[in-house]
Amino acid sequence: MSAARPALDAAALGSQMHELATELFPITRSVAGPGFRDSLDILEGVTGPMERHRFETGTRAFDWTVPQEWVIREAWIKDPAGDTVVSLADSNLHVVSHSEPVHRRMALDELQSHLWSLPEQPDAIPYRTSYYNRSWGFCLTERRRRRLEPGEYEVYIDSDLTDGHVEMGEITIPGSTTEEILLSTYLCHPSMANNELSGPVVVAYMAKLLAERERQPRFTYRLLFAPETIGAVCYLSRFGDRLLERLAAGYVVTCVGDPGDFTYKLSRRGDSLADRAAKHVLGFSDEGHQVIDFYLPRSDERQYGSPGFNLPVGSFLRSTASDFAEYHTSLDDLTFVTAGALGDSLAMLHRIVEALEAAETLEAVLPYCEPQLSPRGLYPTTGALRQVEQSRADMMFLLNYCDGGTDLLAAADRWQRPIWDLRPVADLLMDHDLLRPVQ
Amino acid sequence: MSAARPALDAAALGSQMHELATELFPITRSVAGPGFRDSLDILEGVTGPMERHRFETGTRAFDWTVPQEWVIREAWIKDPAGDTVVSLADSNLHVVSHSEPVHRRMALDELQSHLWSLPEQPDAIPYRTSYYNRSWGFCLTERRRRRLEPGEYEVYIDSDLTDGHVEMGEITIPGSTTEEILLSTYLCHPSMANNELSGPVVVAYMAKLLAERERQPRFTYRLLFAPETIGAVCYLSRFGDRLLERLAAGYVVTCVGDPGDFTYKLSRRGDSLADRAAKHVLGFSDEGHQVIDFYLPRSDERQYGSPGFNLPVGSFLRSTASDFAEYHTSLDDLTFVTAGALGDSLAMLHRIVEALEAAETLEAVLPYCEPQLSPRGLYPTTGALRQVEQSRADMMFLLNYCDGGTDLLAAADRWQRPIWDLRPVADLLMDHDLLRPVQ
Amino acid sequence: MSAARPALDAAALGSQMHELATELFPITRSVAGPGFRDSLDILEGVTGPMERHRFETGTRAFDWTVPQEWVIREAWIKDPAGDTVVSLADSNLHVVSHSEPVHRRMALDELQSHLWSLPEQPDAIPYRTSYYNRSWGFCLTERRRRRLEPGEYEVYIDSDLTDGHVEMGEITIPGSTTEEILLSTYLCHPSMANNELSGPVVVAYMAKLLAERERQPRFTYRLLFAPETIGAVCYLSRFGDRLLERLAAGYVVTCVGDPGDFTYKLSRRGDSLADRAAKHVLGFSDEGHQVIDFYLPRSDERQYGSPGFNLPVGSFLRSTASDFAEYHTSLDDLTFVTAGALGDSLAMLHRIVEALEAAETLEAVLPYCEPQLSPRGLYPTTGALRQVEQSRADMMFLLNYCDGGTDLLAAADRWQRPIWDLRPVADLLMDHDLLRPVQ
Repeated sequence: MSAARPALDAAALGSQMHELATELFPITRSVAGPGFRDSLDILEGVTGPMERHRFETGTRAFDWTVPQEWVIREAWIKDPAGDTVVSLADSNLHVVSHSEPVHRRMALDELQSHLWSLPEQPDAIPYRTSYYNRSWGFCLTERRRRRLEPGEYEVYIDSDLTDGHVEMGEITIPGSTTEEILLSTYLCHPSMANNELSGPVVVAYMAKLLAERERQPRFTYRLLFAPETIGAVCYLSRFGDRLLERLAAGYVVTCVGDPGDFTYKLSRRGDSLADRAAKHVLGFSDEGHQVIDFYLPRSDERQYGSPGFNLPVGSFLRSTASDFAEYHTSLDDLTFVTAGALGDSLAMLHRIVEALEAAETLEAVLPYCEPQLSPRGLYPTTGALRQVEQSRADMMFLLNYCDGGTDLLAAADRWQRPIWDLRPVADLLMDHDLLRPVQ
Repeated sequence: MSAARPALDAAALGSQMHELATELFPITRSVAGPGFRDSLDILEGVTGPMERHRFETGTRAFDWTVPQEWVIREAWIKDPAGDTVVSLADSNLHVVSHSEPVHRRMALDELQSHLWSLPEQPDAIPYRTSYYNRSWGFCLTERRRRRLEPGEYEVYIDSDLTDGHVEMGEITIPGSTTEEILLSTYLCHPSMANNELSGPVVVAYMAKLLAERERQPRFTYRLLFAPETIGAVCYLSRFGDRLLERLAAGYVVTCVGDPGDFTYKLSRRGDSLADRAAKHVLGFSDEGHQVIDFYLPRSDERQYGSPGFNLPVGSFLRSTASDFAEYHTSLDDLTFVTAGALGDSLAMLHRIVEALEAAETLEAVLPYCEPQLSPRGLYPTTGALRQVEQSRADMMFLLNYCDGGTDLLAAADRWQRPIWDLRPVADLLMDHDLLRPVQ
Repeated sequence: MSAARPALDAAALGSQMHELATELFPITRSVAGPGFRDSLDILEGVTGPMERHRFETGTRAFDWTVPQEWVIREAWIKDPAGDTVVSLADSNLHVVSHSEPVHRRMALDELQSHLWSLPEQPDAIPYRTSYYNRSWGFCLTERRRRRLEPGEYEVYIDSDLTDGHVEMGEITIPGSTTEEILLSTYLCHPSMANNELSGPVVVAYMAKLLAERERQPRFTYRLLFAPETIGAVCYLSRFGDRLLERLAAGYVVTCVGDPGDFTYKLSRRGDSLADRAAKHVLGFSDEGHQVIDFYLPRSDERQYGSPGFNLPVGSFLRSTASDFAEYHTSLDDLTFVTAGALGDSLAMLHRIVEALEAAETLEAVLPYCEPQLSPRGLYPTTGALRQVEQSRADMMFLLNYCDGGTDLLAAADRWQRPIWDLRPVADLLMDHDLLRPVQ
């Protein structure tokens, strides 16, 4: 990563984010229920109070119906000898999320149809949900499952499925314009760290950085902490029109806690401001980064980018689901996610945000022939020769290129210079009334 | 060639086509005359009755004039000893097509100016025509020509050049819309097999396949059997306005009987539906295929693609004239053309036709957020994991990509999947009212 | 360089140009003053009388102010022993251009702040100017400077800075249309040969070639000999509106006397007629040529291409400033510039001019189907087979491609043939009323 102008103490922030993830980790979250609300409460310790949006059970949101809330108190299987096979107390992945209550005895054969394990990863407990079908089930390691002996088992799930709400928290940072940037992250998995605690903790700290920003940002920022899929669908059902009118760029932030290279998943448009900013920043910051197709399966960007909305929302991540074997298992824990990776991810997201802020559309105040730089004291005279020449070349480039037709990000791409190096040159020229923003 | 959905028995059809070519081979065809008409009669045995279009001798068609009909009964050269040097009875390539009658004695020196041979291919009789200049001549092998001794020769051509018609046959298969697809092939060479009997026999069987198609096609198909150049020119002079209004795509089909890889010659537009369909099908079917420039010299696509028409007509062939040495000689015979190659060519053309049929423009019925697949029973649950994932990814792709702006062929190209795999997925989604055609 | 149709005797012209450069070399030119005017007088010996444009000292031209004229008669430094260290009489690079008069004695320490040398090139006298700040100074070799001993030095500059004019000369060759081509070169450096005498001598001879051209050109040519920067700025302040209305293409011509490969610097638009013609000609003529970005620093093309004008003006050169170490020093002399290179540069510029002339937009007179070539005697029958086929293919290509939508340069690029080979084919087809210009 090259030296970025918008510096922040990534190491210190990384440690704080890892601590926050550690606090959130044990909570049994699902798309609706007390675990989700408790998690939002904890995140508010960093972000300050969130605006809470609630969607009642049974409400239609496009093709979807808001599910019931799920409360889980206890869940276990006992073997024929009365020994506990698995228990919610050991891992909240052991019970299929939104399992209905059950208390029965049954033969192993019948039990097997309610058990889920991963033959290829014999030590991992898989993660499984049943939001939209009433059923119940247990997840366990393949190794443990293989040791189950024939006989009568007792299964017990003490849960409630009750009408309530799908809920989400939103932070708004007002900008000097009504154009909006959306950072959307999801928070509904139980004890898994990269997918998905890394996203919420990074976005929470991004909220903090934006709130503490020295100057008011140009854009109005919306930072959304929602359950996956149903959250984005509900949010769009209520606020989609506003996004269609105002959204300049957005990112779904997820899987940003592992030490892999960065990945950017393009928005459906492929050349939106969101895409240009992310590609620019990653291109100048992480040689190993990858840019992937919008149409690959992933997450909430599919809702924002559904054809009726076609919003300029990409996805910012490190390793994708197909890149890491720990995905959707108990192996995705707090050792897989590192403080260093969280810190770097926040720094990179911050850089993308600052690139968006920097990407104004400017025009030359004196567009006919070159202006004279020396009478304005703009000829750099100190510094190494190469720096002086670069600085002069940057000035001359901007004075010619900026004709009000493209923004500074396009200029930086054209000139193959990072926008964090070019923006200060533009600022200097603006101070001398040689460039001005296009209104 | 990968497994294609629209299956047909290529081997059996290949044999039938080779037999048909064998029946047509001996006839002395030219652009106008009984040989051409007899050949159409034979093709009607496969296609059913054709509509015959006739253009009178002397009619102007753009820059061209319809020539006279040619009837040839006998033609030979006798050497000073009275022995026959060449005779029409041995090969109808021996006489220059549309030679005027002659019966004279002359010295070898004078005769030489009426003889044509190929020094580089000493065993081949070249093919030569004189449609638009009154003259006469003989073609023979270079080897035979070298053995000619000085002395007086007798030449005899018993032919007529009389006013009549240029004629062509057309099969129309009505579709559910008035948009048209043109398959144009030419049929005016005497005994040569790849160029050009292979084209007419494949198009004749394509007519049969279309007539026997289970469902009525979307497009109306025009299959044209005409003499080369003058046929296309005459057809355009009468039907060009209709083509300009209705033609969606077209192909000139020729040289499809040799076992070489497929060649697609782009239409003048380069990105027409004809081009997209042919490139898509060949791209997923024949690794060795080549796509060549419209502006290379060839045949009737130059008339359809003349700048005033600029119709979306490419050319479908295997080896091009410059690829095979047998071109326009007696070596282009029924051993050079194989039943297997004819069968494969028909199968490939059929696949292109079905790709055109499949290339509807669809739109998502529920364009806001993703629709739920599981309540509709659309989540594939059986099959190998990779197939299940592919099937789900195909569905999600189509539901997002299909916004009424592009057709299914563009979707398949974007998704890098053969349209014959993607169309059934689209059909399934249409059955569930999730996709619909754009009217 | 492949054989070009528009042939000229490059060797003889190269020698004449080198002689002209030799005559111009010793004159002490600057942006304003007698040296510049004397140089124009000498160039008029080749071009004939120029129209002189004058801009009074103090006049504002956009962001610039016309400077005073500079007359220099004598300039030297004497060391403590009274020996001459440097003198204008030895090299007119020794005195900083536009130095104000001075006659003083001073210690070496004080003198040092008025001296300029190049530590990395110890035998070169650098070139330095002070047009817009009143000051004085001397340039000398680093080697000489190092030998200066402490003590009292006498400096003497006998110069005047007086109100007068910036002046430039223009040759106009009227064409059959009012569309214009601009060849702009600059002439304000004292004794340096490649940068910049090579440009003026090549453009002067180009004026001669245009004036002697057999047929009147289509375009009206403007050939401008001006001081660098202030000349282009002043010219644009007076004639910018006409250029905006009429300029079809233009080139800044400079640094064309060294034997390096050709360089083309794109116009700001990047795809203007100027760019297409230069890239076409260099692409078919000089394998080693390079095409460089408009935004790189250079010269007057920056004024023509300032965002308010955005004129289609590129730059035609051989080695760029960053390619040759002699740039802006006494090493850029008449041995660095060769007669051969000057001759080749003129030939190449001539070819570009003729490519522009050839680049008419044509359309087929018979756009429906192909016209018959043989009745018009257009089928080539003599020549090597490959030539005959190429000639026929060229004809068929042009008859199809020329639909009035693009010019012949685009056609030649599309067909990958040099325009000097394709234009005669187009002429032949025009003679036969098969192609005609679009009005």
